[in-house]
Amino acid sequence: MDLTVDLSDRGDRSAALYRALRDAIRDGRLGPGDRLPASRVLASDVRVARSTVAGVYERLVAEGFLEARVGAGTFVTAVAPEPRARAEGALLPRRSWVWGAHPVSGEEPTPAYDFRVGIPDAGLFPFDTWRRLLAAESRHREHNPGAYAPPGGLPRLREAIARAVGYSRGVRAGADDVVVTSGAQHAINLAARVLVEPGDVVAVEDPGAPFVRDLFASYGARVVPVPVDEHGLVVSAVPTDARIIYTTPSHQFPLGVALSLPRRRDLLDHAARHGAAVIEDDYDSEFRFSARPLETLHGLDEAGRVLYVGTFSKSLIPSLRTGYLITPPSLRDALLAARQLDDGYGPLHVQAALARFLEEGLLARHVRKAAKVYAARRDLLRAGLSELPLEVVPSSAGLHLAAFLPDGAPPWAGDEIASRARDHGIGVEPLAAYTVAPHRPGLVFGYGAAVTESIRPGLQVLGRLLADGSGSTPGPRPPGRAAAAPAGR
Amino acid sequence: MDLTVDLSDRGDRSAALYRALRDAIRDGRLGPGDRLPASRVLASDVRVARSTVAGVYERLVAEGFLEARVGAGTFVTAVAPEPRARAEGALLPRRSWVWGAHPVSGEEPTPAYDFRVGIPDAGLFPFDTWRRLLAAESRHREHNPGAYAPPGGLPRLREAIARAVGYSRGVRAGADDVVVTSGAQHAINLAARVLVEPGDVVAVEDPGAPFVRDLFASYGARVVPVPVDEHGLVVSAVPTDARIIYTTPSHQFPLGVALSLPRRRDLLDHAARHGAAVIEDDYDSEFRFSARPLETLHGLDEAGRVLYVGTFSKSLIPSLRTGYLITPPSLRDALLAARQLDDGYGPLHVQAALARFLEEGLLARHVRKAAKVYAARRDLLRAGLSELPLEVVPSSAGLHLAAFLPDGAPPWAGDEIASRARDHGIGVEPLAAYTVAPHRPGLVFGYGAAVTESIRPGLQVLGRLLADGSGSTPGPRPPGRAAAAPAGR
Repeated sequence: MDLTVDLSDRGDRSAALYRALRDAIRDGRLGPGDRLPASRVLASDVRVARSTVAGVYERLVAEGFLEARVGAGTFVTAVAPEPRARAEGALLPRRSWVWGAHPVSGEEPTPAYDFRVGIPDAGLFPFDTWRRLLAAESRHREHNPGAYAPPGGLPRLREAIARAVGYSRGVRAGADDVVVTSGAQHAINLAARVLVEPGDVVAVEDPGAPFVRDLFASYGARVVPVPVDEHGLVVSAVPTDARIIYTTPSHQFPLGVALSLPRRRDLLDHAARHGAAVIEDDYDSEFRFSARPLETLHGLDEAGRVLYVGTFSKSLIPSLRTGYLITPPSLRDALLAARQLDDGYGPLHVQAALARFLEEGLLARHVRKAAKVYAARRDLLRAGLSELPLEVVPSSAGLHLAAFLPDGAPPWAGDEIASRARDHGIGVEPLAAYTVAPHRPGLVFGYGAAVTESIRPGLQVLGRLLADGSGSTPGPRPPGRAAAAPAGR
Repeated sequence: MDLTVDLSDRGDRSAALYRALRDAIRDGRLGPGDRLPASRVLASDVRVARSTVAGVYERLVAEGFLEARVGAGTFVTAVAPEPRARAEGALLPRRSWVWGAHPVSGEEPTPAYDFRVGIPDAGLFPFDTWRRLLAAESRHREHNPGAYAPPGGLPRLREAIARAVGYSRGVRAGADDVVVTSGAQHAINLAARVLVEPGDVVAVEDPGAPFVRDLFASYGARVVPVPVDEHGLVVSAVPTDARIIYTTPSHQFPLGVALSLPRRRDLLDHAARHGAAVIEDDYDSEFRFSARPLETLHGLDEAGRVLYVGTFSKSLIPSLRTGYLITPPSLRDALLAARQLDDGYGPLHVQAALARFLEEGLLARHVRKAAKVYAARRDLLRAGLSELPLEVVPSSAGLHLAAFLPDGAPPWAGDEIASRARDHGIGVEPLAAYTVAPHRPGLVFGYGAAVTESIRPGLQVLGRLLADGSGSTPGPRPPGRAAAAPAGR
């Protein structure tokens, strides 16, 4: 079968393979009744995990392109349908959305051994206190105006955030420099809205967050992945024509390394010399496990080129839907205008309750308490991983650890193991879910959601799978997308 | 003085005038120490309200371009500064944001006679019930997950919305067709995100909502204003190459007329023939003051070309930050992906409380109760307006009425009267705040926020101003933007 699968396509191997097969059926290279290769054979041909192939087959079966015959294999259906989106006269989204990001359902079951990335432990969050504050602030009619409210957020919350980042991260900002958002992704979204012209080059870290790549691409940016090494983003590889450089310097996502101080200086030099904006995403660095953090890019920046992104999704919980952007004055009006045009303003009773949470020192108290729990889990995880044939990437902050597979493991080995691990109740992400360019295969382990008691037994099961090699047959998998969308930072 | 003011510029006369003056100072046509024309003279020259000129002068004074000398006039300062956004090396937003929309502060004082547009009466909203529901739902840990939630909204709320629009508006939709948003503007934003390619033609109503025009323009659309007459949008004037047609058929914003049934059919024909999407913004039609509403475009549509937008900002209060989009199946995945990339998902405890509010029939009860109050205010307003030299535009729904000034009034008369009215404590919008093309001048009166007792006295004050003519000198005005940004629909 003549099948071209472009695996450089924004990192989504599953989507690329789906597209390739669908097109082959569409234009007759695969005819009605043709038998498809076994998933293992095709996986080996196109160098993806077998589970990826299986997921794509399932999707094409669900859409009526393929049919599975028990004991015989997978075949092209007699009459290949046009997918619904192509139906006569139906509205279509613009091209970049048609086969672009697939929304997560948010309804995946919680794995028994939950090493999913980017999820804090909601059980540590002081719900009773939060409910009390929320109820108290809901009582204030001023937070429920009939009229419209300022797009930058409640002044009290902007003030409290400016104080908090000044104290904990050395970010010098006044309340006016703070734009309250619905999380870090929303902050990056607003920055993209006001900065990206179609065709602009945006440099992102590789590996990095797929949602961030997809976001910039959705605004017509040319997203250029830049490699990451043990000192963080390889600044010398950032294109000189990059309009925006997106980086996670405190705790690289997902590798976990910190951007070294010389690299921080180089990056700011690069930005100043070439007129680039730097988006510093400080998504989970509240949790630090070493003595002294490096100064933020924002703190080192003297040219007003850094947009600092913070969030309460990791330090507290994602369902607060609150993050923020610290903006240079030159972008403030545009960011506020964008927020206003996009969705007006955020829920005031939540903002007011959060302001009180910060004012009363409850954020700092929660972070201290949670950091102890996470530190214990992290130690357990590191100890457990050190007994497995994995090479843990050094990291001193955040809520996850990355680990490489042994030298010589094939590129798709991470996907394969993660997929088999899921079949055994272990929620772990392959590093390949975050990469664009070919990369040493590995796994990423979150320890935010992993209850302490589950870590050792989970790693024992994983250890057996790793010892097993890739020869065994996995059990049945739940249907759906093979490479689970990462839950976000 | 050689001053070119392009008043066709997206309807914002104040921004256009500001730009023209600033450029004249920048490139030396106006030199240091030059005296500017009196505001009345310049206003007459360039055909804007004098208050617009005064507001622009104030802004340029604040920015250091001009100085006001008591008793002598307004002069160009000795050394004209570069505005901060142009400072050496500072980051600039992309061009469309630099002099684009100005964010509202949300902190304007409430006028004594509050005829502002698009604001419901928060005093009618059952806060105690709402707080009870919010508190009850905040207690459920499931609404505060550590993990991420589906971008389309809580399934229960989607279900409740589908039932509500089916019952009250004849919109046939399943829960899966509902995308919960942070209000109507956010729903339009998501539609623009997935539909607009830069350069696409988007047809909007003129007069119409400036925020909607600005929103489409911010995605690089060519926004084409289409006139509105007594039967609503003039469908024959919609360009055949429009990719999107945005319309407010139930209660045209801001004129208040309904799109006639023949025009509805024509519009759907046009959309089907030319492959356009129709965005039907049904922002305040819950409040109806005639026997039988026309069927929605969504209900008449058989080709899946209509995106129906609804909101709880008018039927309940804006601070719930909740609206929705009913999407054709062909756009659903793209809309969910866009929501997810943009800001993930909305606050679940609010969505859960709102679901219960709908399930328990409290929305319908509130609308019935509020409609009685609004009907009384509307009657008072119509009666009062009929005694003034104004021609009320017929309208049978919603929360505002438009009225034209007498034939022969100059184009800027509406701005002038609205500005003087504001000086006398009357919050009323000039129709010109919503127009792009030259239009018969008028005023728009909201009766959502106007407490019943204030209507008659407010109109009496307005009547004296109208009788006064435009010759009198207004009192001092608060500084800031001359043409107040409309509060939104």
